[in-house]
Amino acid sequence: MTHPATPTGPTITAFETSPDRGQGLARDMRVRWALEELGQAYQVRLLSFREMKAPAHLALHPFGQIPTYEEGDLVLFETGAIVLHLAERHPGLLPLGAPARARAIAWMFAALNTIEPPILELVTARLLEADRPWSAARLPLVEARIHDRLRPLAVRLGDADWLDGDFSVGDLMMASVLLRLRASGLLDAHPILSRYVTRAETRPAYRRAFDAQLAVFRAAPR
Amino acid sequence: MTHPATPTGPTITAFETSPDRGQGLARDMRVRWALEELGQAYQVRLLSFREMKAPAHLALHPFGQIPTYEEGDLVLFETGAIVLHLAERHPGLLPLGAPARARAIAWMFAALNTIEPPILELVTARLLEADRPWSAARLPLVEARIHDRLRPLAVRLGDADWLDGDFSVGDLMMASVLLRLRASGLLDAHPILSRYVTRAETRPAYRRAFDAQLAVFRAAPR
Repeated sequence: MTHPATPTGPTITAFETSPDRGQGLARDMRVRWALEELGQAYQVRLLSFREMKAPAHLALHPFGQIPTYEEGDLVLFETGAIVLHLAERHPGLLPLGAPARARAIAWMFAALNTIEPPILELVTARLLEADRPWSAARLPLVEARIHDRLRPLAVRLGDADWLDGDFSVGDLMMASVLLRLRASGLLDAHPILSRYVTRAETRPAYRRAFDAQLAVFRAAPR
Repeated sequence: MTHPATPTGPTITAFETSPDRGQGLARDMRVRWALEELGQAYQVRLLSFREMKAPAHLALHPFGQIPTYEEGDLVLFETGAIVLHLAERHPGLLPLGAPARARAIAWMFAALNTIEPPILELVTARLLEADRPWSAARLPLVEARIHDRLRPLAVRLGDADWLDGDFSVGDLMMASVLLRLRASGLLDAHPILSRYVTRAETRPAYRRAFDAQLAVFRAAPR
């Protein structure tokens, strides 16, 4: 371990005023949740939208987003990388056997590169193209592509609690990605996945992380 | 090491007839490239589109895609997971120091979750929505979102050869993702990134992997 944690733990960054109004959809939530699952203390530095695009933050995060992760002289961005780094250093989110460990990591990549891209398309369609003339006609196509991915995911999950054995980084990331769909109602067509997300949300570590990020939003300057 | 490689190495799956006509854009290319960089022998099992959606393959890959990776009793899907697994087992694609290793992995996630999603939107717009009435009006918006990501990437790369020190899994994945843009001409607006991709393509391991997948396409039944 070349980077022992300081007594107060690593520092992450988060929105000073989250655009989701504290619903837990900002990406610092994924890192907070992992830290809570692993029982690790952490510090949060809050950033305004202007600060996120300023040189000091761009030096930490080339795309000017949140979260970042600072621990001694290690600086990381990308929630996938941060969560995996934490899971490798502290027991609880990665199985001990090599094959099971590799499979848990595969589900993490599946969440971020197979399931999330069509969901990001929906977010873009709703946020950035809502006022375009094609918006209403195009939305069903975008939603159909999401269902095309959710259907085989539900088949694979079946009546298991988690994707592969015990709860892992794979489930943490998959549930985080699926939670983006909650408000759209699209998850309701897949009861197996709805129950999976609810199971994830009721974990004490999830609740602690959710409450912590909501408290930031409630305390934010208006 | 609980899974020693067989004398002939692991088995991956690939398209019997690649939809890109052997241009190296099918995702088995990323795994072949990693195996070549690491000097590892491998076997390829070719699949028709029908075989990809059949139960035998869905048991290996829940989303019915290629590639998969089989090594003893370990079965993996998701190119990110396969490439990371290989890089962890064989020296050459991950830096030795813990902070540099974590940063290389962060670039891998950046390729797959920050850079690739808007590129996938372009692929979808061109392949699946080309005949829709909004296609021409919408394409510039999709392209603008790609440029929004490529601009800070080029700034960060600057005049360095690779994203963070020596060539790593991060560069392998980033160059693979950017290569999807080559035919669109969008990369031409970012000479720093064009040169980066060319640098990656001229690596002997890339050439070997490219030639191997092209040979499959040329030998395919028509």
